Amino acid sequence: MPEKDFEKLLRKVEQYEIKKETNIIDLINSLKKTGFNAKRLAIACEIYGEMINNHECTKFFGLAGAMVPVGLQRIIFDFLKEGFIDILVTTGANLTHDVAEALGYHHLQGNINIDDIDDRYLHNADINRIYDIFMPNKVYEGIEDFISKLSIPDNQMTVSSFLKFLGERLPKTSHSILRICAEKEIPIFCPAFTDSGLAIQLGFHHQNLNLNHFKDMLAMVNLAWDAKKAGVCIIGGGVPKNFIMQSLQFCPTSAAYAIQVTMDRPEPGGLSGASLREAISWGKVNEKAKYCTVISDATIVLPIILWYLKNMQK
Amino acid sequence: MPEKDFEKLLRKVEQYEIKKETNIIDLINSLKKTGFNAKRLAIACEIYGEMINNHECTKFFGLAGAMVPVGLQRIIFDFLKEGFIDILVTTGANLTHDVAEALGYHHLQGNINIDDIDDRYLHNADINRIYDIFMPNKVYEGIEDFISKLSIPDNQMTVSSFLKFLGERLPKTSHSILRICAEKEIPIFCPAFTDSGLAIQLGFHHQNLNLNHFKDMLAMVNLAWDAKKAGVCIIGGGVPKNFIMQSLQFCPTSAAYAIQVTMDRPEPGGLSGASLREAISWGKVNEKAKYCTVISDATIVLPIILWYLKNMQK
Amino acid sequence: MPEKDFEKLLRKVEQYEIKKETNIIDLINSLKKTGFNAKRLAIACEIYGEMINNHECTKFFGLAGAMVPVGLQRIIFDFLKEGFIDILVTTGANLTHDVAEALGYHHLQGNINIDDIDDRYLHNADINRIYDIFMPNKVYEGIEDFISKLSIPDNQMTVSSFLKFLGERLPKTSHSILRICAEKEIPIFCPAFTDSGLAIQLGFHHQNLNLNHFKDMLAMVNLAWDAKKAGVCIIGGGVPKNFIMQSLQFCPTSAAYAIQVTMDRPEPGGLSGASLREAISWGKVNEKAKYCTVISDATIVLPIILWYLKNMQK
Amino acid sequence: MPEKDFEKLLRKVEQYEIKKETNIIDLINSLKKTGFNAKRLAIACEIYGEMINNHECTKFFGLAGAMVPVGLQRIIFDFLKEGFIDILVTTGANLTHDVAEALGYHHLQGNINIDDIDDRYLHNADINRIYDIFMPNKVYEGIEDFISKLSIPDNQMTVSSFLKFLGERLPKTSHSILRICAEKEIPIFCPAFTDSGLAIQLGFHHQNLNLNHFKDMLAMVNLAWDAKKAGVCIIGGGVPKNFIMQSLQFCPTSAAYAIQVTMDRPEPGGLSGASLREAISWGKVNEKAKYCTVISDATIVLPIILWYLKNMQK
Repeated sequence: MPEKDFEKLLRKVEQYEIKKETNIIDLINSLKKTGFNAKRLAIACEIYGEMINNHECTKFFGLAGAMVPVGLQRIIFDFLKEGFIDILVTTGANLTHDVAEALGYHHLQGNINIDDIDDRYLHNADINRIYDIFMPNKVYEGIEDFISKLSIPDNQMTVSSFLKFLGERLPKTSHSILRICAEKEIPIFCPAFTDSGLAIQLGFHHQNLNLNHFKDMLAMVNLAWDAKKAGVCIIGGGVPKNFIMQSLQFCPTSAAYAIQVTMDRPEPGGLSGASLREAISWGKVNEKAKYCTVISDATIVLPIILWYLKNMQK
Repeated sequence: MPEKDFEKLLRKVEQYEIKKETNIIDLINSLKKTGFNAKRLAIACEIYGEMINNHECTKFFGLAGAMVPVGLQRIIFDFLKEGFIDILVTTGANLTHDVAEALGYHHLQGNINIDDIDDRYLHNADINRIYDIFMPNKVYEGIEDFISKLSIPDNQMTVSSFLKFLGERLPKTSHSILRICAEKEIPIFCPAFTDSGLAIQLGFHHQNLNLNHFKDMLAMVNLAWDAKKAGVCIIGGGVPKNFIMQSLQFCPTSAAYAIQVTMDRPEPGGLSGASLREAISWGKVNEKAKYCTVISDATIVLPIILWYLKNMQK
Repeated sequence: MPEKDFEKLLRKVEQYEIKKETNIIDLINSLKKTGFNAKRLAIACEIYGEMINNHECTKFFGLAGAMVPVGLQRIIFDFLKEGFIDILVTTGANLTHDVAEALGYHHLQGNINIDDIDDRYLHNADINRIYDIFMPNKVYEGIEDFISKLSIPDNQMTVSSFLKFLGERLPKTSHSILRICAEKEIPIFCPAFTDSGLAIQLGFHHQNLNLNHFKDMLAMVNLAWDAKKAGVCIIGGGVPKNFIMQSLQFCPTSAAYAIQVTMDRPEPGGLSGASLREAISWGKVNEKAKYCTVISDATIVLPIILWYLKNMQK
Repeated sequence: MPEKDFEKLLRKVEQYEIKKETNIIDLINSLKKTGFNAKRLAIACEIYGEMINNHECTKFFGLAGAMVPVGLQRIIFDFLKEGFIDILVTTGANLTHDVAEALGYHHLQGNINIDDIDDRYLHNADINRIYDIFMPNKVYEGIEDFISKLSIPDNQMTVSSFLKFLGERLPKTSHSILRICAEKEIPIFCPAFTDSGLAIQLGFHHQNLNLNHFKDMLAMVNLAWDAKKAGVCIIGGGVPKNFIMQSLQFCPTSAAYAIQVTMDRPEPGGLSGASLREAISWGKVNEKAKYCTVISDATIVLPIILWYLKNMQK
């Protein structure tokens, strides 16, 4: 394209207005006409919308970070309930905290400046800190009580089967991620399961447990292999991101849609911050994919995406 | 306080729901019961609300970053128009781009992956890039035409007086920051004015110009000195942040309210990322102030704050 | 302490000199008298030195990130060979790339501006990108050839036993992490092993494999339990960090020394960026521990730490 | 280029060794054969070396951040003394602290965990905090005493002439940046001078002062215009970066060399984190320039660059 024609591809940035009566659809439509992370948030909403409206698309969702402790359990529950997630990959930590909430325990917050907190004091008070969220140690005792009484049918079942088994045993009334996955038969993978409080308690009380990780890995490759079209949403990065991405290499068409919300950046070379564009070189993301990274805290962006999805035209 | 009583200060994190009909007030109220940057965004909204409702409070607003090019001109215009800002400190860049928009020029964006952009190509096309926003060089020619024809009443007027003079000459129909400040007599400071395209063109066409920066500095100190109560909102950091903060040292009660929205962090030691808590040691922020930093892109957070302020109970 | 006495605790920042003949010990000693991340790097060096000189200390080392592809294999090899690491926890990715290098394959770099790289082009060239490092797909074929021929003695051996078995089969001449761990009987854990190219190939060629992750988790807890004194060095965060930290909760004295080098930050609430101070609340790090976080790219900081350790007074 | 030939452009990543006797030149040469920020640091060293060895090159140096308080005064002094900087642009803060050190005052640090510091306590102790660096308020009194006694020859002199005048009045024995600039007649610009403690005290004691900022701006444009070849080193971003960059648009050949060391990133759209590549679109950096950004704390990287430059082959 000759340089003189480039400008024709562009359109003006809209100096948009926020009115009292603006709604979420207005906001996202306005942000789309701007730039930086605001525009990327709008594009991420739009891509997720397309993933949902495209009935051939298998939606992979990678969830890292302390998203349940911070209060996003119900948000993720709704993504699952509404059919916005077909396959979930997450961390043992999110599952441990999901069980805690499902059993009726709570994470805590308060009008407390975290700079005023002395962690030595918290330690003596038997309260664990996750940035500005607190969890009393006794919650672990409650989880342990639940875990110790489980009658696990097969010590060599896959991690994902075990998670289904676990979800079925959680109170029906809760907004548990494990529970809704079990109920709706949404596969849930946790490749680093033994890196969690839940697994430690399982290990202590069920000494012969050897949950199969390899079968899950192969099952995940098969899910990617079988996807007519693949879409992926990454929250935070970590093992869930890589586990989805390594599987998508075996998807014949790679991911057609990809969005990620993270505070990590590409320059230090870690996979969490790696660009989605880089994933094209690996065949994880398709050359013609629609993709978008939003550099933002997921606690702000994820509810906004859900809010948009619940209101968009289907 | 004995450790066993600490838990009483805390309350449960609410696993909140986003419904189709959720509105902005619901969202912020929900986020307040969570943690991380979501909670901080909610607290920032709440503090800003208090600043507005407290009629003794002088509201200082520091605006760095390319906020006009990216599409936030109208948002800031509304902050000014609604009376949410009493004193504005900003960068020469934002003012340069404000003039451009006021004169009818536009910044551009498009369905373009910035990784696909070759800046050498853009250079040959006479298009300047600000991340994913574009501005044709010819916009500068339009600004230059406007600037060259100005008849400046006093070569030694203060920068802020000059900015008022400039605002008065911009089209009344525009949503210009300079225009609304001039109209509502809101002082606007730009301590690094000569670090801008606007100033370069002024310098070229008005060779004897020596706008007074020192009088502005002293005027700003006096504004802080006279404030019964001071509140501050910092977008992005930079010179606007420091200029407000150095003046607040002379406010007898220091800032009673302080919020900042930035992607910068404290560890590298720069003032942009410095915590608001650190500002207490300097006497910039009051020991008993309500303060809150949101680590997020202002292009996402600033419209949300405005949206909240327009809907909150007054 | 009365406020007037606080200043007595402080000493002057040294405006240090870098001479032509400055050596690494001089540099670190100078940085210690400054602030920000430079001072933290110096303190990290000093703490690591103490960990080494304290013969009761068990040194846990968590290694995330693409450290082998980027050229740090030999640096980590030396940490292991010199006895600076007693227990290693890492990612499947680092091990996959370690095997590649051990088998004589190489990662690639060049005088190439990554902004000029089109990942679609790379994909067609069968070259995978890790930021500015490249790896041809054919390297995977070489690994596959090696993996497919392995005669694995026990499908249910632990991941760590398998990694020892693997290390013993790698060329003696290489600077492989797996090889030196096997040789020196340094336990190596990989809790998210199935999240790797190595594991995928194992899974394809050894269908009944069910490497035991739970026994490793319990073994790690026991290693922490048995440590008279524990020291920890975290590079990058991720699962290796959490796996070490969750085990250290069972160390009777928690970690007495802790350093971490990462670009992640506390505010988004993820474990990778969590402060070491927060770990005190959990009982992972001791209340009286010496600890220090350096916010920097490990590719710059890790060789500097090794350089210091090789030259320090023992 | 056909895709099959791409690999020929690449060479293997060297898994380099750090020996006890490794020196700074070895280190940088090794890092050059790796990737991520380590490689970028090596390339930055190399580019700076070329700038120095190219006698036609005018070397612009932009210095933001609290570099003097943290202990880099002598490092920057040496850059100036060795002829590694031809034109310096910096912040009022760095100059304020430079004067403090030159007058015999000191910044302070200590074995103090900043999380344990209560800024309210510091405020009562009259000690100001800059992350983990402290400065007693009384230092300002010393500066004030010095400033109040100055007999300023011309209230309308340029900021840069005033800074020369100031440097000439500082003790000859100090390692002051202002002093060495005055002595070696190195132009020093400070576009946001009134955004500093130094300027506030000047303003209080010299009420008619109206230092000329516009003449400096034009002088800087002329320096860029006259440069046969331009090289630029940016530490931290901010106004110094933009002021150099806006001038380089008027350099007929734009910058032929450009390096920047910063923790800021491009995605939020601010100029501090903007890529050097983007600067090509503006004509600030030449299409064929050698350029490199290192994402790192300058307190670690700047002394390493100086160390390299003092030892490199000339």
